[in-house]
Amino acid sequence: MNAQLAAQNPEPMARSPQRALSAQALAPASVGNVGIGFDILGHSVAGAGDRARVRRIDEPVVRIAAIEGCVVDLPLDPAQNTAGMALMALRKALGLRHGFELVLHKGIALGSGMGGSASSCVAALVAANALLERPLPMESLYGFALEGEAVASGGRHGDNVGPMLLGGLVLATRDRLVRVPVPDAWHCALVHPHMVLETRKARAALAGAYQLGEFVAQSANLSLMLAGCWQGDAGLVREGLNDVLVEPRRAPLIPGFARVKQAAMDHRAMGASISGAGPSVFGWFEQRDEAKAAAAAMAAAFAEAGLDSDTLVSPIAGPSAALIDVERKA
Amino acid sequence: MNAQLAAQNPEPMARSPQRALSAQALAPASVGNVGIGFDILGHSVAGAGDRARVRRIDEPVVRIAAIEGCVVDLPLDPAQNTAGMALMALRKALGLRHGFELVLHKGIALGSGMGGSASSCVAALVAANALLERPLPMESLYGFALEGEAVASGGRHGDNVGPMLLGGLVLATRDRLVRVPVPDAWHCALVHPHMVLETRKARAALAGAYQLGEFVAQSANLSLMLAGCWQGDAGLVREGLNDVLVEPRRAPLIPGFARVKQAAMDHRAMGASISGAGPSVFGWFEQRDEAKAAAAAMAAAFAEAGLDSDTLVSPIAGPSAALIDVERKA
Repeated sequence: MNAQLAAQNPEPMARSPQRALSAQALAPASVGNVGIGFDILGHSVAGAGDRARVRRIDEPVVRIAAIEGCVVDLPLDPAQNTAGMALMALRKALGLRHGFELVLHKGIALGSGMGGSASSCVAALVAANALLERPLPMESLYGFALEGEAVASGGRHGDNVGPMLLGGLVLATRDRLVRVPVPDAWHCALVHPHMVLETRKARAALAGAYQLGEFVAQSANLSLMLAGCWQGDAGLVREGLNDVLVEPRRAPLIPGFARVKQAAMDHRAMGASISGAGPSVFGWFEQRDEAKAAAAAMAAAFAEAGLDSDTLVSPIAGPSAALIDVERKA
Repeated sequence: MNAQLAAQNPEPMARSPQRALSAQALAPASVGNVGIGFDILGHSVAGAGDRARVRRIDEPVVRIAAIEGCVVDLPLDPAQNTAGMALMALRKALGLRHGFELVLHKGIALGSGMGGSASSCVAALVAANALLERPLPMESLYGFALEGEAVASGGRHGDNVGPMLLGGLVLATRDRLVRVPVPDAWHCALVHPHMVLETRKARAALAGAYQLGEFVAQSANLSLMLAGCWQGDAGLVREGLNDVLVEPRRAPLIPGFARVKQAAMDHRAMGASISGAGPSVFGWFEQRDEAKAAAAAMAAAFAEAGLDSDTLVSPIAGPSAALIDVERKA
């Protein structure tokens, strides 16, 4: 792929007078895993996200100038930062002579299970892509986003970066993104309790051996849920959106989880589970009003467990990452 | 469900003069698992199947009068026979006062991995259903078919009976059948080597513990394959139809498996794997001609391993079970 991408992006002999000098992009939050699709399924969420401003620089490096917003104690070393690593991978693959300087504005809390590291990574890639002679299609940024994500989680999984790149509900496998259709009316309630659950700790809860029967049950549920999305059949999603593999192992890490989930189900959720590695909890609903009412009830359940929380309500067919502005040479 | 079904089928005070006395049905063969959908995905296959003739009798019992065809040494005790057990379950659920007498004609070899026990079971149910005052829709026979299948395999899995009831490619979960669309042009080559692989032995090869990573890889493949079917995208099926969980554990039980699979792949298979519990091997193809050529090459590969074989080529959207004839009271 690298040679092919590089061929599409030759370094020009003379720069175009309209060449972009800097660009700013926003990538939304996301619900990773969606319960039954561990590491392979996710959807974007409107209403929160990270911003990245990327400036073209002559030095052949990636530099992080600043990290602002709701998280500020992240590493400025680009090789230790998801966004920095993704831009380094982009530079290398395309054989770019120029570099990038990056300012991140974090809008998603660290360790929230809402895809914060992925959001920085995708925002930076989308902004940097706008500075290329021939910007790549969003799908072609996927591999670089995976390299960035690996810094945060130690593994290449695209269930957060995939939906941010394409928008909506996305199946994200090792080297392929497939958008899964969902009705516009379906909404998600996402509730973020004010506590940090480290991804590494949440992954440690999954260590150990599994039984084949667990996998059969989970893959039956995943298949029913996907069938329900393709057919727009909420009844199938209701049957399938039930994580019997991962949720039971991670739920003990989230105070009040059972009551928060029950609050969602009591408000006609098609299903509810842990967003990404947690501690955020999501529910899927057929109507926006149901999701709004459920979000309040879910937050109240977290309050009973002693946790303040924020809530988001978004279409499941949420937005993709997008450019906010581009500054061009005069 | 039982009470509901019984209410739909009250025993009449006076019998209709046109009441059916006996009926004969054919259920096709099937490819269970389809590689990546262990215990939950299957499709029917035209060109082979079991027939059942069911006669209404006054005694309140299920009786197996004879088993004919390519397998004759099966138990006549209905409680030990998949078809007998399914009819017993039907009688019980509907509270029928009359009984059934059954003659099975086996067209599918025992232990072939082509759904032979499921075929008998479904053929008997479809024939018996035609004798009811108000025949049930095919989906409603699923639970009885699962009870029959459990006699043969010790577990309730519907990846063979489901496709036989609905036809085509079917997602068959604990209590739900969903037909998955596939293009009419897509064909399957199914090659049955002349050896018996007992389902129980094939299941024993799957004992032991599994790693989460294996599940993630397999469910990614399953999801890609389902996406490819829903979108009619052979490229997605090609990526997804790759069993990394079950096939590696069962392949050593099938002489020559690797070469047979390679023969399918050499003929542009979208994927190839073990049919059901084996030893039959299937491949999926975009065109009938490819499947025909591949079937011959796959049989030749089995011959190299010292095994004669039969071949079938069928649309993946294969037939459902169907009535052949119904005899009515004069």
